[in-house]
Amino acid sequence: MTKIYEATVTAPVNIAVIKYWGKRDSALILPTNSSLSVTLSQDHLSTRTTIRASPEFSTDRLWLNGIEEDISASKRLVNSITTARKLRAALEKKQRDDGVASEDIVLLSEWSIHVCSENNFPTAAGLASSASGYAALVSALGALFQLPQSTSDLSRVARVGSGSACRSMFGGFVAWRAGESNDGSDSFAVQVADRHHWPDLQALILIVSEKKKTISSTAGMQTTVETSDLFAERVRNVVPKRMAAMEKAIAERDFGTFAEITMRDSNQFHAVCLDTYPPISYMNDVSRSIASIVHAFNTARGRAAAAYTYDAGPNAVIYALKDDMRDLAELVTYCFPRGSTILSEDFYADPFNMFGSADRIGQVPTDPDVAQLATATGQFPAGSVRRIIHTEVGDGPCVLPALQSLLNESGMPKRAKE
Amino acid sequence: MTKIYEATVTAPVNIAVIKYWGKRDSALILPTNSSLSVTLSQDHLSTRTTIRASPEFSTDRLWLNGIEEDISASKRLVNSITTARKLRAALEKKQRDDGVASEDIVLLSEWSIHVCSENNFPTAAGLASSASGYAALVSALGALFQLPQSTSDLSRVARVGSGSACRSMFGGFVAWRAGESNDGSDSFAVQVADRHHWPDLQALILIVSEKKKTISSTAGMQTTVETSDLFAERVRNVVPKRMAAMEKAIAERDFGTFAEITMRDSNQFHAVCLDTYPPISYMNDVSRSIASIVHAFNTARGRAAAAYTYDAGPNAVIYALKDDMRDLAELVTYCFPRGSTILSEDFYADPFNMFGSADRIGQVPTDPDVAQLATATGQFPAGSVRRIIHTEVGDGPCVLPALQSLLNESGMPKRAKE
Repeated sequence: MTKIYEATVTAPVNIAVIKYWGKRDSALILPTNSSLSVTLSQDHLSTRTTIRASPEFSTDRLWLNGIEEDISASKRLVNSITTARKLRAALEKKQRDDGVASEDIVLLSEWSIHVCSENNFPTAAGLASSASGYAALVSALGALFQLPQSTSDLSRVARVGSGSACRSMFGGFVAWRAGESNDGSDSFAVQVADRHHWPDLQALILIVSEKKKTISSTAGMQTTVETSDLFAERVRNVVPKRMAAMEKAIAERDFGTFAEITMRDSNQFHAVCLDTYPPISYMNDVSRSIASIVHAFNTARGRAAAAYTYDAGPNAVIYALKDDMRDLAELVTYCFPRGSTILSEDFYADPFNMFGSADRIGQVPTDPDVAQLATATGQFPAGSVRRIIHTEVGDGPCVLPALQSLLNESGMPKRAKE
Repeated sequence: MTKIYEATVTAPVNIAVIKYWGKRDSALILPTNSSLSVTLSQDHLSTRTTIRASPEFSTDRLWLNGIEEDISASKRLVNSITTARKLRAALEKKQRDDGVASEDIVLLSEWSIHVCSENNFPTAAGLASSASGYAALVSALGALFQLPQSTSDLSRVARVGSGSACRSMFGGFVAWRAGESNDGSDSFAVQVADRHHWPDLQALILIVSEKKKTISSTAGMQTTVETSDLFAERVRNVVPKRMAAMEKAIAERDFGTFAEITMRDSNQFHAVCLDTYPPISYMNDVSRSIASIVHAFNTARGRAAAAYTYDAGPNAVIYALKDDMRDLAELVTYCFPRGSTILSEDFYADPFNMFGSADRIGQVPTDPDVAQLATATGQFPAGSVRRIIHTEVGDGPCVLPALQSLLNESGMPKRAKE
């Protein structure tokens, strides 16, 4: 039997606490400012990707969640794959230069590949999967091609696929250095702290129902760069200070500072979207109500005990320490009741067993102060929040054993939708 | 019979197209930036105020819409009245210095006053009545005291009552020069163009239903000054350019430029509110939908044919030229149906007879392109917009004849609520 050249990896989602918004180079995806994110656990949110290279494949093919996509239609996909192939070709050349016998050099860079990718969370969740998707793609190519480059080097390859994907190449707390050079050589991700640095930090993701589709972040951010009179001030004077303060807060596990900067930066990102012409708004009334509830929760606690952040959509991600998360989870599940058609355990999975039993989800909170806040706030229409994902800080991409492959013997998806 | 010393005036509402947000001096109400507004017709929105001075009055008294208020409880009311009295006292001193016989000098500055004030629009409309209210108060005091000061001089007196009130001292198009001095001597309103300069300009005010009360602008704007990292950029570099461009656009009756600056400045005002910590948001999903519909209308027209602006609340004011207003009115009355409990003529008064008959209000628009846009947009829940006021550019404060007085012979309100 012939040897199979294949790699299967999983890669995580990351949620920025200092937002990436605006490119200085759209082709290379070079950002106008540095950003910083928290990598979330792959237990709840991850993309698994298997890539096989074979001289028998006639062309590159890609399946996303069981459906075949046209690779050539995506310039970003082509960019990432081509860039990785060049690195493999350079490695093969080096092997030749080092005198490795040509029969011992596998010319993977010249073979076509089959890529099969699946998310462990429903696309319906409305969570951007491009970051975990491109991080998985590039990690799988790195493993398949046995590339010697560092993770930061490979993060540049993920970056040309999807900017924020470079941050999903690491676990824990990750900074994307904007860099200054025109070739993008100094625009890559670095790990600020690993997942074990701050074990008590948890995240609650609230999937908010949405009527109409919103403008894509790719289109939106460039309109902001071109039309917002306030954007340059954010890039020049605000973000650099926040990056330094946020890295310090993380190093010192100073949640109060982490929380305030996170909320301020989310608000400012949406503020420059509103200052864009025509204006862009991603948050809706439910999103804003969640933010108000978080501020009310913090006021009741007498400290910044929770921090919301919103990306290019209405969904909220709330960071809090383990000790505050139970009260927070009780508060939001009370204020935002599940839709009548959704089971409690689908609405809120309770992975840390905070509720004990599913029928306690959505009841009046146990803590008296939080109960008072909950009843004072009242309940929103059932289904305003469709799903709540409770998770924590997680690791970067992992290589899985061969039996976890998504491809069968002939290199086709094991699970394919027609 | 003893002579009655009394004056009755009406004063208009104004809607800013370049927003006032932020004070450099809270006591004198000196703004961080200049602003510019359009004075609206008093046929639809005005405050009428009668003030009488009498040696028989034991104390200053005030009735607002038939209900007596405690003047001493409002520092701003006391400031305005005291400032006007000082000007009257100076006038009386001048008369003495000029040798006027003392029996011919009426010491109005030493007498107590009765103030009776009524709006011709329901407070329920949620329209800020402080601008028309203080402009009426100061105009009535100016007439009663026969003050020789110019309207710009008197606008400084209105300003210490309510900042934006200084702009309601003129009709047409009015600029409030921020000024630089600490005593506020150079912070006053000037007329940029009178109401006859641009007769085709009209306004549509959409009163949007609101669940919760929002933060007051007085409190909100100072939090913005203190916490927004983007606010200083707006004040320093954005507003000065916009003031110049807006005055030029008005002088040239260039609606396209007028419209774009109006929308951009409204959006930026709400952007710095969102950049405030904790964030302030005045617009809700209905407000934002109205803005989207205006942009869609402009796209369909191939030009900026309408311009929205929002103050510290969810209500929208849409400016458009007469020729576009009918289509716009048909579009918004279709997309935002009246509540079941409201009569068409209360929902939309049709002062310019655009609909002909009330039963045509809310029907599919007559213009095919607008009809297509309307049906594509769809209809919002009935009552999302509670009331629509269609009006135009109007005059400044007017003095009314004695028989229009709101006070009876004994100086008490003709109409008083118990």
